[in-house]
Amino acid sequence: MTAYRLASVPGDGIGVDVTVEARKVLDRAAVLFGFSLEWTEFDWSCERYARLGSMMPDDGVERLSAFDGILLGAVGFPGVPDHVSLWGLLIPLRRAFQQYVNLRPVRLLPGTTSVLAGRKAEELELVIVRENSEGEYSAIGGRHNAGRPDEFVLQESVFTRVGVTRIIRYAFELARTRSSRVCSATKSNGLIHSMPFWDEIFAEVAAEFPDVHSEQMHVDALAARMVQAPDRLDVVVASNLFGDILSDLAAAITGGLGMAPSGNINPSGEFPSMFEAVHGSAPDIAGQGIANPVAQILAAAMLVEHLGETVAAQAIRTAVDRVLDEGRVRTPDLGGTDTTERLGTAVAEAL
Amino acid sequence: MTAYRLASVPGDGIGVDVTVEARKVLDRAAVLFGFSLEWTEFDWSCERYARLGSMMPDDGVERLSAFDGILLGAVGFPGVPDHVSLWGLLIPLRRAFQQYVNLRPVRLLPGTTSVLAGRKAEELELVIVRENSEGEYSAIGGRHNAGRPDEFVLQESVFTRVGVTRIIRYAFELARTRSSRVCSATKSNGLIHSMPFWDEIFAEVAAEFPDVHSEQMHVDALAARMVQAPDRLDVVVASNLFGDILSDLAAAITGGLGMAPSGNINPSGEFPSMFEAVHGSAPDIAGQGIANPVAQILAAAMLVEHLGETVAAQAIRTAVDRVLDEGRVRTPDLGGTDTTERLGTAVAEAL
Ligand SMILES: CC(C)[C@H](C(=O)O)[C@@H](O)C(=O)O
Ligand SMILES: CC(C)[C@H](C(=O)O)[C@@H](O)C(=O)O
Repeated sequence: MTAYRLASVPGDGIGVDVTVEARKVLDRAAVLFGFSLEWTEFDWSCERYARLGSMMPDDGVERLSAFDGILLGAVGFPGVPDHVSLWGLLIPLRRAFQQYVNLRPVRLLPGTTSVLAGRKAEELELVIVRENSEGEYSAIGGRHNAGRPDEFVLQESVFTRVGVTRIIRYAFELARTRSSRVCSATKSNGLIHSMPFWDEIFAEVAAEFPDVHSEQMHVDALAARMVQAPDRLDVVVASNLFGDILSDLAAAITGGLGMAPSGNINPSGEFPSMFEAVHGSAPDIAGQGIANPVAQILAAAMLVEHLGETVAAQAIRTAVDRVLDEGRVRTPDLGGTDTTERLGTAVAEAL
Repeated sequence: MTAYRLASVPGDGIGVDVTVEARKVLDRAAVLFGFSLEWTEFDWSCERYARLGSMMPDDGVERLSAFDGILLGAVGFPGVPDHVSLWGLLIPLRRAFQQYVNLRPVRLLPGTTSVLAGRKAEELELVIVRENSEGEYSAIGGRHNAGRPDEFVLQESVFTRVGVTRIIRYAFELARTRSSRVCSATKSNGLIHSMPFWDEIFAEVAAEFPDVHSEQMHVDALAARMVQAPDRLDVVVASNLFGDILSDLAAAITGGLGMAPSGNINPSGEFPSMFEAVHGSAPDIAGQGIANPVAQILAAAMLVEHLGETVAAQAIRTAVDRVLDEGRVRTPDLGGTDTTERLGTAVAEAL
């Protein structure tokens, strides 16, 4: 029996609530599909920061590096500035483990309706391949003339040939397993250094994949297309910032943020990959047991899929679909009154 | 009788087609509402670039500076790189004339339907106040190790205290004339130098307007809200890039890009302001007489409103509404078969 060592980092807010349910579903899947999971839980969070002054211990990266996969809840809490909470945990992990792909698939789940009028489920199935290690999210920059009227800040974006090439290539390879269409988000008309470079590499990689249809759109027009003609999109490849925006939008036009999973993937397998819901820690509803655990359960399915347990992953997705389709168990965001725990249990049982 | 001197720069592609119609409507409004317009037309465009090697003459800025207002078509044509066409015309004009406000109002026009399900027109009325002079659109940056495997580019964003303060203050002042609600687009969790600075100034300015309700959202969540709960947004203030993306999205959920006007405004009046449709030059349909002129006609209405001719501006909007509501004259994007010219004439007659 294959045994996997998994790390769980529930984090903050509803991250804790939904991670319990995702583990419950995974544990059940392990029993049913003949593998075993050994979990180690880490309390790295804003709460830890308040107590000990750091989001994770100094050797945090090292301690996670031996695991086969990481399930992350969500990070962030009012009062702890984002540059502490996120740049003290989420972002360093993404980078240390060279999880340069942020994979964000969305589809309209059964029993849910899109905010878009008249769209069928098959028109609302796409995946954002987001660059996850560089680009606009850079720590380089700073403030000049602080406190003076002529104060200004600089914020540097950094795009490397290595970084851009590998994410675009990943998108093209993924497209071969789907619709064979890739759309690249650019903004070369406004960002005249970074985006022409991105476009140039996109054209180079596209030439390696003559069987895949490629196009590029400015990110503003692409956001518009996502709501006007989502059926014309399948694999969308985008920089760190553009992928962030486009994937929230993609989640919003499908089941909403409560439904969208994501994987921070290190394709070489040299380091562990990390899976999380797209949604944040939602402090306003944390601990009330009303958060929708579906996104995190689907993130857990991506985790076992990444480990090679594709049958189990598919079974989890089918179980989620069935529970949502029946509609008997629904959290408040789905129009019901059920708890996080009940929805998690329903999915585990539907397995 | 007040006389205004206006510059028309039709530019490229459908910019030319729609600007003719907008002028027709303005000329009619002038007759009806007792002012006079003296037009000067400039052929600055990609076509000029192909002929003479530059988008506009060296003294282009100077030549426009004495006008009371500028009506711009659209810029861009295949084969002319964007950094030439846009950074050779649109962007230098925005900056030279300190048009630091890019005002982008949207509403669901009569006779059109939203791509969002079940939304009434009154839920779909908002305005994006986009910073238009600095931020992510900066010429600072460049390429290192060109052509080598370790090649990379840097792209600098620049946010000044002066620039951020004035755009946010403009948004709060505008909110006082509307719903008294301002939402600021941030991304301080990812862009840890520029956006915390933006947020800090937003908080300072908000304190000057205790009567206006203020909130801030990360741009990813804000894009999601725009499609999930647009009724909860009214005045949205955003950086150059975020405002670009959010305003295309706002146009997409209302009448589409064929309907969205914008103003590049110099609030002090020291320099001329410039009005244009949000849409681009759409080379694929240029010159066929099928482009929708509504966005440009509404941009022309913003122009005369800016000049103080509020009655005429309102009359133009009412005429557009009436023509769209009747639905007898519709360009292909509106589901009809009428020409650009017919729709323009219909609006002029409805005045
Ligand atoms: C053409 C381009 C540079 C421009 C911009 O992004 O500013 C356009 O998209 C706009 O929105 O006016
Ligand atoms: C929390 C934040 C830094 C993060 C991001 O933008 O990467 C989040 O929005 C996400 O999409 O994973």
